Amino acid sequence: MPAADDARWLAAAAALAERARPLSRPNPGVGAIIVKDGKVAGRGWTQPGGRPHAEAIALDTAGDAARGATLYVTLEPCAHRSERGPACADLVAAAGVAQVVIGMADPDARTAGIGAARLADSGVAVRCADLPAADLGLAGHECATVLGRPHVTLKLAMSLDGCIAAASGESKWITGDIARAHVHRERARADAILVGGGTLRTDYPALDVRLPGLETRAPERWVLTRQAAPEGWQALPSPQAIGGMEGVRFLFVEGGAGAAAAFLQHDLVDRLLLYRAPILIGGGRTGVGDIGLASLADAHGRWRREDIRPLGPDTLEIYTRTR
Amino acid sequence: MPAADDARWLAAAAALAERARPLSRPNPGVGAIIVKDGKVAGRGWTQPGGRPHAEAIALDTAGDAARGATLYVTLEPCAHRSERGPACADLVAAAGVAQVVIGMADPDARTAGIGAARLADSGVAVRCADLPAADLGLAGHECATVLGRPHVTLKLAMSLDGCIAAASGESKWITGDIARAHVHRERARADAILVGGGTLRTDYPALDVRLPGLETRAPERWVLTRQAAPEGWQALPSPQAIGGMEGVRFLFVEGGAGAAAAFLQHDLVDRLLLYRAPILIGGGRTGVGDIGLASLADAHGRWRREDIRPLGPDTLEIYTRTR
Repeated sequence: MPAADDARWLAAAAALAERARPLSRPNPGVGAIIVKDGKVAGRGWTQPGGRPHAEAIALDTAGDAARGATLYVTLEPCAHRSERGPACADLVAAAGVAQVVIGMADPDARTAGIGAARLADSGVAVRCADLPAADLGLAGHECATVLGRPHVTLKLAMSLDGCIAAASGESKWITGDIARAHVHRERARADAILVGGGTLRTDYPALDVRLPGLETRAPERWVLTRQAAPEGWQALPSPQAIGGMEGVRFLFVEGGAGAAAAFLQHDLVDRLLLYRAPILIGGGRTGVGDIGLASLADAHGRWRREDIRPLGPDTLEIYTRTR
Repeated sequence: MPAADDARWLAAAAALAERARPLSRPNPGVGAIIVKDGKVAGRGWTQPGGRPHAEAIALDTAGDAARGATLYVTLEPCAHRSERGPACADLVAAAGVAQVVIGMADPDARTAGIGAARLADSGVAVRCADLPAADLGLAGHECATVLGRPHVTLKLAMSLDGCIAAASGESKWITGDIARAHVHRERARADAILVGGGTLRTDYPALDVRLPGLETRAPERWVLTRQAAPEGWQALPSPQAIGGMEGVRFLFVEGGAGAAAAFLQHDLVDRLLLYRAPILIGGGRTGVGDIGLASLADAHGRWRREDIRPLGPDTLEIYTRTR
């Protein structure tokens, strides 16, 4: 089957994986689709708490149709038995699946390649598309496994001239309803939200998810401070301490300028979400404080534009850190 | 003929008009296309210094084919005889053109409607598409006629966080080669470029046009200062004085932050060209100084996004002032 079909079905599996996130935490949110004769025979995604796995659900929904079919799965199927269920590689082989297309090999060195090998040993044809983790919704899993820390998104809502507030401190509102709804959707996909100590003291932001049906999805609330956190909040003493945020795979940093600068200075931002309103403020408060840049040359080559799209009158720009 | 065809041919005429700009100054750069049986029979644009007019050139190139044809012209044909040539409305009627489609009625109250009426009186079918002046390359003519001042474009080359330089003042380079070449093209389309006094003293910018074949197109250089201008420069004492910039129809303001703020504060910017590099500077120098904004609400509803497009790694955002 041509590679274009692989990419198409894996993108569909990745879309299913979005349903797993963030409820599957700390397990990766995986998506799986079983295709037979060009039609979807089964599909699944990691269930809340991490089990059952996506492959198990997809096999269940496919039933006998799995025999001779192709399984598209965003992450390499697991090869280890656990107390919580059998290894997916064994389940897939037992169901008679003819071939498995894997979006990304498991970056965890303890399991990388082992699931694929188990499948191949059982006579299943296996190939790995090696897609970027971000395209598969697995950036959090990759960061946790490879870097020992959550995947970090920094959000800034700014004017055209880079201000997040007027000189007076007024910041409501820079962006419009559609952009703010988009922020709430991004919150709902995160495990934790963080703001700086100054922002917490000044704004005491709710950081809730005000979207119909997602009201209960508000992530953990964290504040960047060496002091005690107020009730309902957890304290992160420094950006470098994010490795200790237990179970957090996707961290959403909402500012202000000091927190943004602290994370950027330590190169701990993987993704920028820039909401840009069609206004000029002029001499306002800027979104990013001093990041210790020695020269302009050092600033280049670090960010790649992933997307620019209108959100009503505003514009969303998405950049990812090149590594 | 359907309106969609009108728009298509007028867009083609507007593209021709770009060839007139800025050499036709202070006359508007007009484009004209003569179409017969769906094919271009003649075309023209305003010649350097303003004469001959676009219609005269188009009629010359069409010759006998103009009889019974349709003339698409970006601006209403003139109805006044001058020492420099006959009225275009008379020329068009005499050539036997069957119909004329006008992009925009002349905003000059002394001639508005008169050219169209002269054509109609001669038996030519006339209709006016009433397109925006900006779409026709006539924004400078409209501003000069209606507002008594040049059309003003403010250009800013910024980082994602709105900085035009590092805290140290280092500003070379924020944007890349493609964006800088685009700036030079924009300079070549302007009649005058202006920078602030601080920028002139600090950077002494060449403001030349470093594009093959356009090296001679460097516009007049102006500096915003109440003091005497250095040799090769002209002094503009304040933004409100732009009405006195004789013969200037398109003014290109290149910064710095003080000049940008001065023009914005007096609502004298019609178009924003924002070149955005994929870098974060953090705590750098911002592109727009204090513009006296009383509240965020006052900042909204003033700018409309016209275009966002990639220029290599950078992004160009174009906004126009809603009026």
